[in-house]
Amino acid sequence: MAVDTAASTAVDLGPATALSCRECGARSPLGPDFACLECFGPLEIAYDYAGYDAEELRKRIEAGPASIWRYAPLLPVPADVADKPNLNPGWTPLVKADNLGRELGFTGQLYVKDDSGNPTHSFKDRVVACAIEAARAFEFTTLSCSSTGNLAGAVGAAAARAGFKSCVFIPHDLEQGKVVMAGVYGGELVGIDGNYDDVNRFCSELIGDPAGEGWGFVNVNLRPYYGEGSKTLAFEICEQLGWRLPDQIVIPIASGSQLTKIDKGLQELIKLGLVEDKPYKIFGAQAEGCSPVSVAFKAGRDVIKPVKPDTIAKSLAIGNPADGPYVLDIARRTGGAVEDVTDAEVVEAIKLLARTEGIFAETAGGVTVGVLKKLVETGQLDPSKETVAINTGDGLKTLDAVSDAGMAAVIRPTLESFRAAGLATA
Amino acid sequence: MAVDTAASTAVDLGPATALSCRECGARSPLGPDFACLECFGPLEIAYDYAGYDAEELRKRIEAGPASIWRYAPLLPVPADVADKPNLNPGWTPLVKADNLGRELGFTGQLYVKDDSGNPTHSFKDRVVACAIEAARAFEFTTLSCSSTGNLAGAVGAAAARAGFKSCVFIPHDLEQGKVVMAGVYGGELVGIDGNYDDVNRFCSELIGDPAGEGWGFVNVNLRPYYGEGSKTLAFEICEQLGWRLPDQIVIPIASGSQLTKIDKGLQELIKLGLVEDKPYKIFGAQAEGCSPVSVAFKAGRDVIKPVKPDTIAKSLAIGNPADGPYVLDIARRTGGAVEDVTDAEVVEAIKLLARTEGIFAETAGGVTVGVLKKLVETGQLDPSKETVAINTGDGLKTLDAVSDAGMAAVIRPTLESFRAAGLATA
Repeated sequence: MAVDTAASTAVDLGPATALSCRECGARSPLGPDFACLECFGPLEIAYDYAGYDAEELRKRIEAGPASIWRYAPLLPVPADVADKPNLNPGWTPLVKADNLGRELGFTGQLYVKDDSGNPTHSFKDRVVACAIEAARAFEFTTLSCSSTGNLAGAVGAAAARAGFKSCVFIPHDLEQGKVVMAGVYGGELVGIDGNYDDVNRFCSELIGDPAGEGWGFVNVNLRPYYGEGSKTLAFEICEQLGWRLPDQIVIPIASGSQLTKIDKGLQELIKLGLVEDKPYKIFGAQAEGCSPVSVAFKAGRDVIKPVKPDTIAKSLAIGNPADGPYVLDIARRTGGAVEDVTDAEVVEAIKLLARTEGIFAETAGGVTVGVLKKLVETGQLDPSKETVAINTGDGLKTLDAVSDAGMAAVIRPTLESFRAAGLATA
Repeated sequence: MAVDTAASTAVDLGPATALSCRECGARSPLGPDFACLECFGPLEIAYDYAGYDAEELRKRIEAGPASIWRYAPLLPVPADVADKPNLNPGWTPLVKADNLGRELGFTGQLYVKDDSGNPTHSFKDRVVACAIEAARAFEFTTLSCSSTGNLAGAVGAAAARAGFKSCVFIPHDLEQGKVVMAGVYGGELVGIDGNYDDVNRFCSELIGDPAGEGWGFVNVNLRPYYGEGSKTLAFEICEQLGWRLPDQIVIPIASGSQLTKIDKGLQELIKLGLVEDKPYKIFGAQAEGCSPVSVAFKAGRDVIKPVKPDTIAKSLAIGNPADGPYVLDIARRTGGAVEDVTDAEVVEAIKLLARTEGIFAETAGGVTVGVLKKLVETGQLDPSKETVAINTGDGLKTLDAVSDAGMAAVIRPTLESFRAAGLATA
């Protein structure tokens, strides 16, 4: 308790009181740390939620802003966070996906949580918004990250708004949309000749080097704070359902952090009395070309064997996913599963979601919808139950995947030319 | 009055009672018509707002959904519109643009209304959502439009969700992002060998042809309903300011419809007693390469001379803007102005907005911010007053404009390579 008090007077991150090791439970003060000094386990945020009354908290949330800051009492951010310059992401639509449900044989309600509506059009705005508040608290001046593309854009944009310098690192061969978006905000964008796992290793080295002094790496030394942003997906889904847990959730896996934090968010809502406890199943989605967690799940193994990614779903191309073992735990504990689909199935699923619901997802969204389809077809997911699939990003960032979806014809502006083109609708 | 009653029993479009000619005031029943039979003037929606009490209406709006449907009582849509399959656009952020304001010398508050957060990332989702309800009422089966790109994507997506077929027409030489997005939703996308004005003329021909039977052209024969969607920008801005009119608004001009409907929306709020009446100024923004309205404004003329567009701001490239004369009226009546900027200034303004506020705008947004800057510099807009600039679209759709904003360097994943690159932040 002494540690908690000392830490909470040092920095104001709202209800966050300390860092706590996920493996051994050892506590340490709030700081820019990510690995336990005792056992090297990952650090998480410990909170003081003791004073919360469920009804009061629910009302306070419902009266809050239309962004993740409505959940400020459950995040490591100061109470006045909404007044600080930030991108204010979240409160994205939970779309009733009746057309998609019909095509996939659902009799229960299917929803798509569409996170492409965030400021830089991916769920990464949520995690960066939380990391920024930690960066302010720890007085960093430059924001950085290793990224598969979406995170680089989210950090660049948020740094610009919040008044930080930024320098972000990506594999050099990403999609044009992600590269330009990451570069346009005026920070420094550095391509690494290697894959994401190489980028990530390099960033860890940079943290120990004088060159990285004063730098907050949102997904490395600010990772405990950053990760909490993903809980808001769980909070929003349940609030948008009328403060209720769904039966099944399908979530894409890159590092696995999003899936584990959504589970953490659901558990917090149960403990706080904001939703009634009931069983729910969590499913993970990977692309076949980068499916170390899916392979381990199917083999019944606890250990993730790293792979060299080879898939068009570049935002999920993490061959050595840090939270992989926790994902396996959660999928098994909840009675869910981890599944993967081929790149061809990813493309087909992007088009399926667009054609049925008018949602243009990036390749990661194609992975999720493709896996949703496969889970139903293989009997792993029950289409009579209330189900939520998460679209984490935007199709405009991965245009090449569906570049065949262009013009049916080019004609002259005359009725004759229109008729001659023999279009289906004509 | 006989006409109003007959019309309102025939179709349920909420408070809409009839069509009314903007020029001669002649009324006709609600139907898929756009030109007055008496004088060929443009038709607008006439409403019955008689039963509204300001306080009740305000409360009803504030308790409504986080989309344009909170304003259903002020739109030509049925009361249960939010329960129908639709993209539910709107309620996008009004961003306090303190960093941009500082760079431009503002002492009053500057805001950016960021409409890139809409489902297909442009303000067109607002107008299409309204047109769809009219298309349902008039029992059209196919949705169509002439488009400079954004509208085609918005129609394709909304048609997919709402269960319509779609066939949309665009100039053949648009940006890849717009072409792929318009095509991905499974409708038919037809390129026209010509510019937007050719596309538009062709669509007008198609309406009179058997090939176009059963087709609702959202911006032609559904134009009166479609246009009303733009009023929601005015409604949201005022509600987000705490039910107050801003002093100055800067709006891009393509056909000019958005600007005229924002003014209409502001006037309705005043008449309904939802905001206090006070003077406001409306400014229009064009690209120099397609500036017929700006040219007429500066010359003090009432007549718009059509031009052949030549600008990177393709979404504004309408050489013969239908609502141009009304834009001139509004700019002059309110004490505003119409200004234009070069393509180079557009690119500079896109980067300025990104660097200061973390908002990545398409070229149309660059036109607006560029014109905002020029209006301040030339003393036409008062930087001590509360000002709103509207960003209507997303930078991911016009990547080529800023394709030089890429990687500062490509390095190997080592500290040595990082240091050798000599980056500014290193």
